Amino acid sequence: MITRMSSLFLRTLREDPADAEVPSHKLLVRAGYVRRVAPGGYSWLPLGLRVLRRIEDIVRDEMNGIGAQEIQFPALLPREPYEATGRWTEYGDSLFRLKDRKGLDYLLGPTHEELFALTAKSELSSYKDYPVILYQIQTKYRDEARPRAGILRGREFLMKDSYSFDLSDEGLERSYQLHRDAYVRIFDRLGLKYVIVKATSGAMGGSASEEFLAEAPTGEDTYVRSTESGFAANVEAVVTPAPPAQSTEDKPAAQAHPTPDTPTIETLVAFLNDSSLNTKADLGRTFTAADTLKNVLLKVRRPGDEEWQLLAVGLPGDREVDQKRLEASLEPAEVAMLEEADFAANPFLVKGYIGPKALQDNGVRYLVDPRVVTGTAWVTGADKVDHHVVDLVCGRDFTPDGTIEAAEVREGDPSPDGKGTLVAARGIEIGHVFQLGRKYADAFELDALDENSKLVRITMGSYGVGVSRLVAVIAEQSHDEHGLVWPREVAPFDVTVVIAGKSDEQIAAAEKIADELDSAGVRVLLDDRKASPGVKFADAELVGVPTILVVGRGLANGVVEVKDRRSGEREEIAVDGVVGHLTALVRG
Amino acid sequence: MITRMSSLFLRTLREDPADAEVPSHKLLVRAGYVRRVAPGGYSWLPLGLRVLRRIEDIVRDEMNGIGAQEIQFPALLPREPYEATGRWTEYGDSLFRLKDRKGLDYLLGPTHEELFALTAKSELSSYKDYPVILYQIQTKYRDEARPRAGILRGREFLMKDSYSFDLSDEGLERSYQLHRDAYVRIFDRLGLKYVIVKATSGAMGGSASEEFLAEAPTGEDTYVRSTESGFAANVEAVVTPAPPAQSTEDKPAAQAHPTPDTPTIETLVAFLNDSSLNTKADLGRTFTAADTLKNVLLKVRRPGDEEWQLLAVGLPGDREVDQKRLEASLEPAEVAMLEEADFAANPFLVKGYIGPKALQDNGVRYLVDPRVVTGTAWVTGADKVDHHVVDLVCGRDFTPDGTIEAAEVREGDPSPDGKGTLVAARGIEIGHVFQLGRKYADAFELDALDENSKLVRITMGSYGVGVSRLVAVIAEQSHDEHGLVWPREVAPFDVTVVIAGKSDEQIAAAEKIADELDSAGVRVLLDDRKASPGVKFADAELVGVPTILVVGRGLANGVVEVKDRRSGEREEIAVDGVVGHLTALVRG
Repeated sequence: MITRMSSLFLRTLREDPADAEVPSHKLLVRAGYVRRVAPGGYSWLPLGLRVLRRIEDIVRDEMNGIGAQEIQFPALLPREPYEATGRWTEYGDSLFRLKDRKGLDYLLGPTHEELFALTAKSELSSYKDYPVILYQIQTKYRDEARPRAGILRGREFLMKDSYSFDLSDEGLERSYQLHRDAYVRIFDRLGLKYVIVKATSGAMGGSASEEFLAEAPTGEDTYVRSTESGFAANVEAVVTPAPPAQSTEDKPAAQAHPTPDTPTIETLVAFLNDSSLNTKADLGRTFTAADTLKNVLLKVRRPGDEEWQLLAVGLPGDREVDQKRLEASLEPAEVAMLEEADFAANPFLVKGYIGPKALQDNGVRYLVDPRVVTGTAWVTGADKVDHHVVDLVCGRDFTPDGTIEAAEVREGDPSPDGKGTLVAARGIEIGHVFQLGRKYADAFELDALDENSKLVRITMGSYGVGVSRLVAVIAEQSHDEHGLVWPREVAPFDVTVVIAGKSDEQIAAAEKIADELDSAGVRVLLDDRKASPGVKFADAELVGVPTILVVGRGLANGVVEVKDRRSGEREEIAVDGVVGHLTALVRG
Repeated sequence: MITRMSSLFLRTLREDPADAEVPSHKLLVRAGYVRRVAPGGYSWLPLGLRVLRRIEDIVRDEMNGIGAQEIQFPALLPREPYEATGRWTEYGDSLFRLKDRKGLDYLLGPTHEELFALTAKSELSSYKDYPVILYQIQTKYRDEARPRAGILRGREFLMKDSYSFDLSDEGLERSYQLHRDAYVRIFDRLGLKYVIVKATSGAMGGSASEEFLAEAPTGEDTYVRSTESGFAANVEAVVTPAPPAQSTEDKPAAQAHPTPDTPTIETLVAFLNDSSLNTKADLGRTFTAADTLKNVLLKVRRPGDEEWQLLAVGLPGDREVDQKRLEASLEPAEVAMLEEADFAANPFLVKGYIGPKALQDNGVRYLVDPRVVTGTAWVTGADKVDHHVVDLVCGRDFTPDGTIEAAEVREGDPSPDGKGTLVAARGIEIGHVFQLGRKYADAFELDALDENSKLVRITMGSYGVGVSRLVAVIAEQSHDEHGLVWPREVAPFDVTVVIAGKSDEQIAAAEKIADELDSAGVRVLLDDRKASPGVKFADAELVGVPTILVVGRGLANGVVEVKDRRSGEREEIAVDGVVGHLTALVRG
């Protein structure tokens, strides 16, 4: 069936929408693919829905290809399963919660681990039933703090989520690899430029995890990669290489020094290096911020807990705390900065002069940056106003409770794989593969009977593709100053046929070509409007169908013009051969 | 791709689920099509999802066939548009309402008139843009008081809802007819037995309205049809034929009589007809309950109002009030029975002896059954304990404020079209076509500019098909004691191939046939499990694929058995010809 612009539910806009910042948002609205209905809520107009369905079909095809079976859950879910795993609370404000007419608690599913685990438990029992991969392509809900960039980060979105169920760790590894390979095929078919980065696990619990990030300067996710190897990781997932431990024996003894008016690293380093100020503490060396140990005080609260606990993080003074890395390291606990009242309640905390001693004497949990290894010597707070300790040695003078990845990652830092240094880049998360392990199986006692009738605990993986987001991601990577440029595999139509003039002859020829293309299985958008050629050409560019056929003045000489939307190349084709030409082009 | 029972995510059950009452619910759960997740919330397992998608495709095909364009809205919607039309309140407890993290009000869309009207307003402007039909196939939410019967009445369900936008009433009539015809084609393709009944408008506002009801003894909807004509209507939509008005001149004068201890119609009629009790009031006639006028006192409250208003309904004493008809007549107002406190606050209401006089003297709105026409004479309350009035004539002694359809409809009542009498039947609503008119266009000032640049107010229609419900409705009409019996057009597979034995020969032959069928485009479910033939046959019947191919002992003689699931007929087919035979069968 030919789609006619004269009746298509489509209004293109000449101006960018006021709330749009990124190209995909501007263009998808201007070209009439989506419309905003609420913050983070968009309607799909006919062109947008066509692209969305094509992407959905590719995802489905590749999922079926690895033997995954499609099912579908409700989006409106009862509280109990999420209570059982703690996620009812852990999700915090990101979860849409509601009550039904009886006052019972429900949520709008952000992801369905609980339900899939429960379903596997009720339907499967023997080792013969495993392994299984189940998936759904379903509308999900997350109450994002800052819905932004149109459909890139919505509060209601379409996602493919799948779950693997295996009898062994090796099985999980295999299911994970099947998904990873399927995702590579999906994103390759969509023509995307992307990287696969090591990721943290977030609120999901579990171990191995990788994210697929589409390369985009407008992306929300920052990642780093090595200048020399294939290493790439989310900033949150970067593991700081620890230097080797050193002997503590040859180190000078720690000494407290008066260091007046040095509550910041900057003032401290200036003081230490300026012998005119620092007659007593002149140590005959030059200090940098990297020689100081900064102790940052925080409070953390575990999900469901009432009470906050103090936490101190020690890191080299030349590094700031990266809030996202800190949060990722502490998840699912909440973390907050100390308030004045907290300092008042804990007088041993001497602001600007906090040192490991007071922390450890007062039972404050103390985690340090991985660079703070045994044998390293530091200038740090002496727990007394205007005083610091010099040559405080880790493993001799203080013993941290552990390490934490909280310090910022910088370009030029050594790559964790030992090859090259790190550079930063930005991307948009389009897929996530994740070895959950037994967290959910434990919560619901998901077991199988093995050959010997013994119970084996199942291990799970969870895997997501942001289907609706992909429409925007493709647009983000594939557009120019005139509009959208769809890859053939997802384009809403194969060919736009533009009737450039108003002569009966041109109209008749265009209709005939459109009919014949349609019969040949080519999906045609026919611009049969009574509009100027200029308006029609501009809309054809904006809408971004890969091939534009112009039936215009050349018809008198027996030719029509075929334009490639991406390259802009035009060629004149004899009108008699154009259907064959375009059919071959579309079929690739 | 062949689907193998050995790996299909399917567990069939031998027992009916405890909470299931109707056949479709029992069988869809037993055969592994759906599973309950929450009250009124079901997951679709692989077989169920296949049937659902096939139905969805048929609905989409017929909608596209009438030129309707598919779009899709969010389910999570802001309050404001529904506030503008009053439905935020009118929907009452049936609406799922929630707040986001900022405390803003949202709802889960039960139906999308508001959003479609707003979208038409923002995208369309000229008369040239009209008419338009838009639709979506989308998940809907209603907080049903009594979710029941599995997916027949869920709280989360898949619906096709479409909306027509026209410049004129004639245009609306045309769009309505297009939908009505499309629905006939859809339900015919699905092989359903159904009737089209006149319906009331419910909370939607508007005028012409018909429902498509699938015939089912387990149906929730009662409807009536004529014994002699094609008339059929929802009980709520039955319009009582009014008898002709009579002259009031030849009627005897109204007279009050003492009627001790007659607070009910039964005691009143007994008193009137028993001359031993009734010496004073002996009127020389015999009375029936139909000669008495019963005045039922209610209170009503319009959406958004605080205050209740009194309402009296007068109806012949032989008829009860039908609560659903009463509510439908008063919608969107709420209605409730009077409480003792209400009687105490209105002492002119003499319980058991209420008459029109006191009602009208005290300004109580008084609506009567359509049978209470001018010139009819009634025995009714005299507004005094133990007293009634005889020969109170409508139009002479009292004048009602109007009529109301509140009395029960009975089998044997005359058909509203004057042909035959009514009989009752039960059905399940599967479709609804509805001329909304300008209610929503008025609410949002949806206009088009006509040829003379004048504004024309748009008129709308709204049309629904319960897509997920149809899975259950088909099962309800198409099953037997062994299980489901799917019509070919919606079956999850075309053929189940059962390997009856365990010989390598049988397995190899079945695999070969399955492969060839698959290559020929036939959708095959291959039962390759290591189970007994009895288990496999029972599951094949339960699952209900239209054709069952058994590869068994006959193979030694070069034959296999083809069984028709519906008729139970079996025939032996030469193994060499079976692929051609089945392919022809499937293609019809």
